[in-house]
This record gives sequence, C-alpha cells and structure tokens, in this order.
Amino acid sequence: MSAKAVIHTYEPFATGEYEQRLARARKLMEADELDALLITTEANFRYFSGLHSQNWVSPTRPMFLVLGRDRAPIAVIPTGSRVVMRQSSWIADVRTWMAPKPSDDGVTLLIEALSEAVGRKKGRIGAEFGPETQVRMPLTDFFRVQKAMQPTEFVDGSAIPRRLRMVKSAGEIARVRAAAQLVSAGFEALPGMMHIGDSERDICLAMQIDLLRRGAENIQYMIAASGPEGYATINTNPSDRRVGAGDLFIIDTGSTIDGYFCDFDRNYAFGAASDAARRAHALVYEATDAGIAAARPGALLCDVWQAMARTMGKEAIAGSDVGRMGHGLGLNLTEPPSVHPDDRTVIEADMVLTIEPGIGYTAADGKRRVMVHEENLVVRANGAELLSRRAPPEMPVIR
Amino acid sequence: MSAKAVIHTYEPFATGEYEQRLARARKLMEADELDALLITTEANFRYFSGLHSQNWVSPTRPMFLVLGRDRAPIAVIPTGSRVVMRQSSWIADVRTWMAPKPSDDGVTLLIEALSEAVGRKKGRIGAEFGPETQVRMPLTDFFRVQKAMQPTEFVDGSAIPRRLRMVKSAGEIARVRAAAQLVSAGFEALPGMMHIGDSERDICLAMQIDLLRRGAENIQYMIAASGPEGYATINTNPSDRRVGAGDLFIIDTGSTIDGYFCDFDRNYAFGAASDAARRAHALVYEATDAGIAAARPGALLCDVWQAMARTMGKEAIAGSDVGRMGHGLGLNLTEPPSVHPDDRTVIEADMVLTIEPGIGYTAADGKRRVMVHEENLVVRANGAELLSRRAPPEMPVIR
Repeated sequence: MSAKAVIHTYEPFATGEYEQRLARARKLMEADELDALLITTEANFRYFSGLHSQNWVSPTRPMFLVLGRDRAPIAVIPTGSRVVMRQSSWIADVRTWMAPKPSDDGVTLLIEALSEAVGRKKGRIGAEFGPETQVRMPLTDFFRVQKAMQPTEFVDGSAIPRRLRMVKSAGEIARVRAAAQLVSAGFEALPGMMHIGDSERDICLAMQIDLLRRGAENIQYMIAASGPEGYATINTNPSDRRVGAGDLFIIDTGSTIDGYFCDFDRNYAFGAASDAARRAHALVYEATDAGIAAARPGALLCDVWQAMARTMGKEAIAGSDVGRMGHGLGLNLTEPPSVHPDDRTVIEADMVLTIEPGIGYTAADGKRRVMVHEENLVVRANGAELLSRRAPPEMPVIR
Repeated sequence: MSAKAVIHTYEPFATGEYEQRLARARKLMEADELDALLITTEANFRYFSGLHSQNWVSPTRPMFLVLGRDRAPIAVIPTGSRVVMRQSSWIADVRTWMAPKPSDDGVTLLIEALSEAVGRKKGRIGAEFGPETQVRMPLTDFFRVQKAMQPTEFVDGSAIPRRLRMVKSAGEIARVRAAAQLVSAGFEALPGMMHIGDSERDICLAMQIDLLRRGAENIQYMIAASGPEGYATINTNPSDRRVGAGDLFIIDTGSTIDGYFCDFDRNYAFGAASDAARRAHALVYEATDAGIAAARPGALLCDVWQAMARTMGKEAIAGSDVGRMGHGLGLNLTEPPSVHPDDRTVIEADMVLTIEPGIGYTAADGKRRVMVHEENLVVRANGAELLSRRAPPEMPVIR
C-alpha cells in the first residue's frame, strides 16, 4: 500500500447539536413570522441535517430540506441519495423520488412537504433569496412551487442560516482548526519540497499530495501566483511558469476536514526578496497582527478593517483588488460576515474569521504588485485565538 | 522536488471556436425570439467565455455574462476576477465592481449591460431557469434586475446552452478523452496499489495521489463502496471500512482535464467473487456493450436505455436506485441528455455520453446488492467510439 491516510475522523455532531440548531432557527422563524424554511444549498442543508454527500457536484438533481416552525423537518431527496442521507443525517422524515425526472423533479413531493410544514392556508416561507446564497433548483420548478403554495408567500429567509452559521459550535471550531493546522504543517514543509526553477503547477501538485497524505478531505481551492519582485494579482490558477531567483510566490488553499474549510495563504521569496517586497510583506504582517488584535467581542467587523487600514493606509489598500480584508468561513470557503468598511456586524465569541490584508505596492521596475497575507482565527471572550499557525515574520527564502 | 506534474496542457480554444458557439447561440436566440441570454453558472459561463476561475468555489460573489443577439458579449464580474478573466477569456467588454458589496453586487452594472444588449424597450431575455441549472445569484438581486428591466421579460433560455453543449467540438472531445484515458490508466494500476484489508479511504487516497501525478487537474468526485459479495448502494463517501476477502469494491470518479470531466467506475473482487456477484457483473458488462452498440446517430436516448433493459430485464434495473443508465458529460460531471426511458433526445454525432447500467441482485445471504458499471464514449457517424479504455470482462481479483 503506497498511501495510508492520516485520518481526521470526527464523531458526527450529536443529534442534540442539530436539535439545538433547529431550535435556534425556529426562534428566529418566530421573530420573522415564518412558518417554514426551504433549504436547497449544500452548506445550509448540511448545517441543519448533517447530510454529507458528493452528489452536490452534479447539478442534475436538486435536494430539498423543509424546516417547519412547528413540524418535524422533512427531507425531499433523490432515491440515489437515500443511503448517504441515512448514514450522515439525523432527519427521520425522508421522502424520495427516482431522479432525474424533468416532468416532476421532486416538485409534487416538495409542495406536499411545504404544505404540511406550513399547516395553514396563508403562510410565509423563508427561502435562500439573500446575499451569498442561491435557490439551487430550476427556477421554473421554483415558480411552480410558488404558484401551488399560494396564498402562502415566499420571502427572503436567508438571514436565519446566515445568523446561526456565523457563530460556531465547539465541534465546528475543532474541524476548522484541524484543517488549518493540517495546512499550516503543509506550508511549513513546503520550503523543503520546492526549488528555484519549479513551476507553479509542480509546487501545487507537491502541496496537494502532501495535504492529502496529512489527511485533507478535499482540496477544492488552490491558487498560486508568482513574478519578479512580486505578483500582480492573486486568484489565478497555478501555471507552468517557473519560479525563478528574485521571484515571489504566493499559494492559497481552501482545504476541508469533515466539510469544514480553512482558507489562508503563504508568501515565499525565491533566491532573495527585494526591499520593496520585504517592506510590503512586513506591512501586511503588521496589519494582520492589528486585525487579529481588533477581532474582539463587541467590536464591529468594520473596526477590524479600520485597524488594518490604520496600519497600511487606504491608498495601499485601494491598490489591491480583493474588495475586503477577511471573511467568515466554515462549511463554505467564504461566508458572512465580511471584514469590510461597510460591514457593521457585531463580533461575537465563537465567530471564525480570516484576517486577510492586501495592498498594492510599486516594485523597482515601477510597476504595480500586490501583497496579500492571511490567517484564520476564532474569536474568544478575551480576544482572538489563532486556528492557523502564525506565519514567520520574514518570508521564507527558497534557495 | 518530490512531484513533477504530467502536464496535459491544451492550447486554449481558439477565439474562432467561441465565436462559433456564440453564432450558434444567436441563431437559437433568433428562433426563440430572445434578445439576450443571461448566464450566471460556471459551466455555461466557461462554455461561452472561456473563463477558468476557482472563484466559483466561493458563493459570495456572482458573475454575469450577457450575450446579446446583436451586440458583443459583456461580462460583469468582480474586480478580483479581472486578471483571470483576461488570462482565460476572449471577451473584450469586461465590466467590474469591487465585490462583495451587498447593497449593489453588480446589479446596476448588470441592468446597464442587459439594457444595452436588448437595445429596445420591450424585449425578451433568456435566463437559466430550466432543468439541471440554476440562477446563480441572490434572487433578491435577480428580482431587482427583473423589475428594473420591465417591460422586458425574462423567460427560460436554458435550452440554448443545453442544446449547444450536448454536441461537443473536437477540442472538447479531446479533453474528455484525456481525462478518461488518465483515469483508465489509474484504474488499471489500482490492483497493484491495494491489498485485502486496506480501507476504502486508503484506496481512494492512493488513487487520488496517482491521478494527480498522472496530470488530473481536479478530482471533484470520488465515491467508493464495498461489502461482502457486493455493495448495497453507490454514491457513498469512502469510509474507514476495511475491504476484506470475499468483498466487492467499487470506485467511481469524476476527474477533470482543463475543465472537462470523465465519469466512470470500476469493480474489483477482493479474494474472490461469489457466483452471484460474477453473474451480476457479467450482466452489466453485457448491457454496457449493448448500450455502446445502441449509441448511434439517429437513435433516441430511450433506445439506448431499452437496449440495456433488454439485456438485463426491467426488474433487475428497478432494484438499482440510480434513476437512469447514463448521461451527458463535459464541463459538468453530469449534463443532458439522460439515458432514460422518457428521454426522446435524438442522438447526434459528437455527443459525449456515459453508459452506466445498474441492477439490483440477491446475494447468498438473501439480501439485496447493487452492481453498476460505466464507460464513457463519443458518438461518431458510424457508432460509438470509447473514450475510456474498456474494463476487463472479469472483475480483477485482488489477493
């Protein structure tokens, strides 16, 4: 056997935890005068039901979860997902249809389930209409459901899962920490696995294999960029470009353990870093410290942004193009809130955040470069606790 | 360097190919009296624009592509995706906003772009409303766009990309073939990498690392199942279950090369296969041959299903729970059409399909098992040409 998985297996969340999530959702449903929530997206479905399935990769078959305010939850799913539902979910009422069936892909079953959950003629159903989410089903089918449910109306209910998911349980935090620790170890080992002249793609392949061996469940996101004295953008795919002496190299990954993401990056100097690059890295490093220090219960998300902006200056920030300096993470690679000057969400204990300052700077050739740095943390009563292992203050130099 | 990527790099599709895709879409728009198509999903966006970005993993930021019938295409994307758009897309008119910006996440820019594309007061815009697709943006934002565009109306335009994407170009077929050949080699090598007593997870880890070394771009989907004399379902995550003597093991992967998926599985007998398991495998193998032979231009998708059903019997098929016996594939793991008794799509040359017969059967313990087999093919004028390498008629025995 050439590979033995380091297994980061977690006991499934106890049914009690799911019941608590549902109880909290019901309180918010009561406040919002909603009779039911209709859930169609993978992360929200998993949050409330536990369902862990790769079938979401295929866009062919929708899956529905109906959370009644006063009725037991109902899952409406394709027959082919029945076993994985039984294996991973606590939901007892599971109704199935043999999908795909374009003439009625769960629509009749969904209407029945929603009608039972609402339990009265004119109700209000919350659906995933709001920011950072979608209704994951054909809209022609959604419109049919909407029509059949009249006079019951559909309104935006996305604030409820958003609100709940922003504050993590101990089990959720443990999973993000495990992912972040695993990737930290990978980033720390990476200098021993790369050399001047390796391509971005070679380095990412080595990193992927290393993370899988360390027990990463899935490496959904891995971007890389490099260039002389620095890189001009992030969010690009690893290329065949060979990283040469004098180049900077950034690698960023969103890898999961039991469904939960970490999301952070590291910068490496090949041969040597120029003065401009070292100054830029020192600045984002210092800003990261400021952001971590500002992430305390009671502060606003925009305060964290301002703390970093004070360190780096708004002009430098405008030279980056990321649009914010951190975000929530968990069952999604990125989720609310945003470390953004307009986000007035109040920070609470057990929020999990990335702190991700980025700046533009000018290299010796007079052209613009970008420098981004990132760590993952959980907010505690006394302040932030790192989930990733803090990067070294100086970029590692690859020789 | 511990890892060197086997690079399956393709020249990007020529701009001419994208222009041809757009020209075909415009013809269909004319027939459907549509002034523009609004594209929001990754696969359709990539099909028309070439955009290859990992930013789709994050649900935070929508991306919009507006294809006017008479106007040049317009992309409306976050500033952070500008570079990867320039690197991978031919679209000249790219408009950006600094996302996320929940108060206006591209909505104003999208309304402008749609208005220009429609170019008259009362038009018709096709959106991704239909089967196997979604509108990937917050519906609250979509409803704002819909209202602002009145009296122009939004209708289901999903048939146009569906129709076009069903028939592949030479470059698309080459990519699916490369993915399928790579995975075929991995499946052929797997008996040398697994032993009685390995866990499903260990085997999948070895397979993942092997596929990455062979040049797989991404392994988005890898499921496994095992059990004495056979497995009770597919579509389950690899578990810590150790595969023992007398067990069957199935592994199925959707891996990509340059964005294009293969999707097929292989069965292995650990120690020895029982008579019932061997008979079941022989039956799905024979049905696969029948399905491959039936996949000819002019036949209907349901004819392919019937050809397999004649081999296996409808009762056996009903014992599986997959819901169909194959499907299209390409930029999605699964895409139209379906090998389904109700799918009357006419088969055309250059369609790429999986042939995936599945049955239920009874093992010696009197309990139900499932057997699924799968190959990938492209339809040519004279009949099917395999893209995967045909599995051996007898299941490999692992000792």
